[in-house]
Amino acid sequence: MDFLEALSRPPLVLGIDPRPELHPIPPLAHIERYSFELMERLAPKLAAVKFQTAFFEALGPLGSQLFHRLLAGARVLGLPVIIDGKRGDIGSTAEAYARAYLEAYPGSALTVHPYLGPESLRPLLKAAQTHGGAIFVLLRTSNPEAEWIQEAQVEGEPLYLRLARWLAQEEARYLRGDWSAIGGVVGLNHPEAVWAVRAVLPRSPLLLPGLGAQGGHPLAGPGFLNTASRSLYYPGGVPHLERAEAQASAYLEALKAS
Amino acid sequence: MDFLEALSRPPLVLGIDPRPELHPIPPLAHIERYSFELMERLAPKLAAVKFQTAFFEALGPLGSQLFHRLLAGARVLGLPVIIDGKRGDIGSTAEAYARAYLEAYPGSALTVHPYLGPESLRPLLKAAQTHGGAIFVLLRTSNPEAEWIQEAQVEGEPLYLRLARWLAQEEARYLRGDWSAIGGVVGLNHPEAVWAVRAVLPRSPLLLPGLGAQGGHPLAGPGFLNTASRSLYYPGGVPHLERAEAQASAYLEALKAS
Repeated sequence: MDFLEALSRPPLVLGIDPRPELHPIPPLAHIERYSFELMERLAPKLAAVKFQTAFFEALGPLGSQLFHRLLAGARVLGLPVIIDGKRGDIGSTAEAYARAYLEAYPGSALTVHPYLGPESLRPLLKAAQTHGGAIFVLLRTSNPEAEWIQEAQVEGEPLYLRLARWLAQEEARYLRGDWSAIGGVVGLNHPEAVWAVRAVLPRSPLLLPGLGAQGGHPLAGPGFLNTASRSLYYPGGVPHLERAEAQASAYLEALKAS
Repeated sequence: MDFLEALSRPPLVLGIDPRPELHPIPPLAHIERYSFELMERLAPKLAAVKFQTAFFEALGPLGSQLFHRLLAGARVLGLPVIIDGKRGDIGSTAEAYARAYLEAYPGSALTVHPYLGPESLRPLLKAAQTHGGAIFVLLRTSNPEAEWIQEAQVEGEPLYLRLARWLAQEEARYLRGDWSAIGGVVGLNHPEAVWAVRAVLPRSPLLLPGLGAQGGHPLAGPGFLNTASRSLYYPGGVPHLERAEAQASAYLEALKAS
């Protein structure tokens, strides 16, 4: 599987951030069954499924086992996988992250932090390109307090756009077909930033979190991956297969109309 | 245990970044035994032990189990623990990381990325303060390519120093005794940056990686935690208890002389 096939699927990403307190006891068994059934049911409506590592890490070693089983399940269903780990390290440590998330699971994508310098992402980009995966670099995130650093003016432009320009120099090197293995993350509540990044990075997949939350409205466009987590995984605040399926259909309708 | 007790111990941190290819078969069993014996032997010479999560994540769920057993072992030995995960996320996800690394292991410290805005660190800072832990914010890292972003000039000063100034507004709020739960990370190969950060953040522990690598020389100072990973865990390129103990003594001598 090549992750970039996600770009020719419906433009909706299901985010899985499991919260044990919202599941019947024993919660881990229920999270596992619900996640499998939900992925199976929604698969034809999804570009990819995104796992938020923090919620699995908070469950300790059992969470790590659950995470690996769900990843394997997504692959069996033919669903492209995004690992939302927001990792970022250098040299041999970046290579260890590549082994953990891009080689052990070929064809998957990983979200990453740019604070160690864009050049530090190279081991991850190389691994993604070799193993059919992708890297989504945090550019302009949805949280209000991100402005302090991401919109800081550096040589006359906001830092996030300066980062996008650096990535643009590399975009062509990591092309596979129409799309590049270099992607970006921009919050749906900043549509102007989405278009600014798209202008700089024409062939990068853009992961757009915040659908149904934080004031994020559906935004259709080339390579846009609208992501809904809590509002799709817990529609109405609880796990519910039928409502989730209806919600996915509603999001896709809204994306067609946008 | 309170992590800040590390500041009244010898100023050396052992970094554990296990590489299976450097151990006899079966490597995980040997990594476990060697790490326990090394921590036990070096404990009187160490401020803390630092675990690099990437190398455990690269081992899959078995790595996660090993990581948890070694963390527990460090606590049994009375050794303060730093989890070098370089995490960074927002809202409920930051809280999940706090549960994973500051509450499940009270009195431990976590390294974090600042790219989502310093304000986004608040859930982690609160958890650290509540559970006797600490947060080390990446400021000026050792890798050459970090300059691109960390030394970017924002309103007339480098970004890393601007971040340190933001943290300085909060430093006093997270004091416990002489030290604050807000720490910073600065590479030992940038001594000028270490002193610049210390001038801004007088009561923050400073984690200084790169001893014996990347041109990092010992640097003694108030609250400085000099960190040696590969050069101490694999002295001469292989696991070796006696040589590691000699290396730790040599580092402490060099720190006294510096």
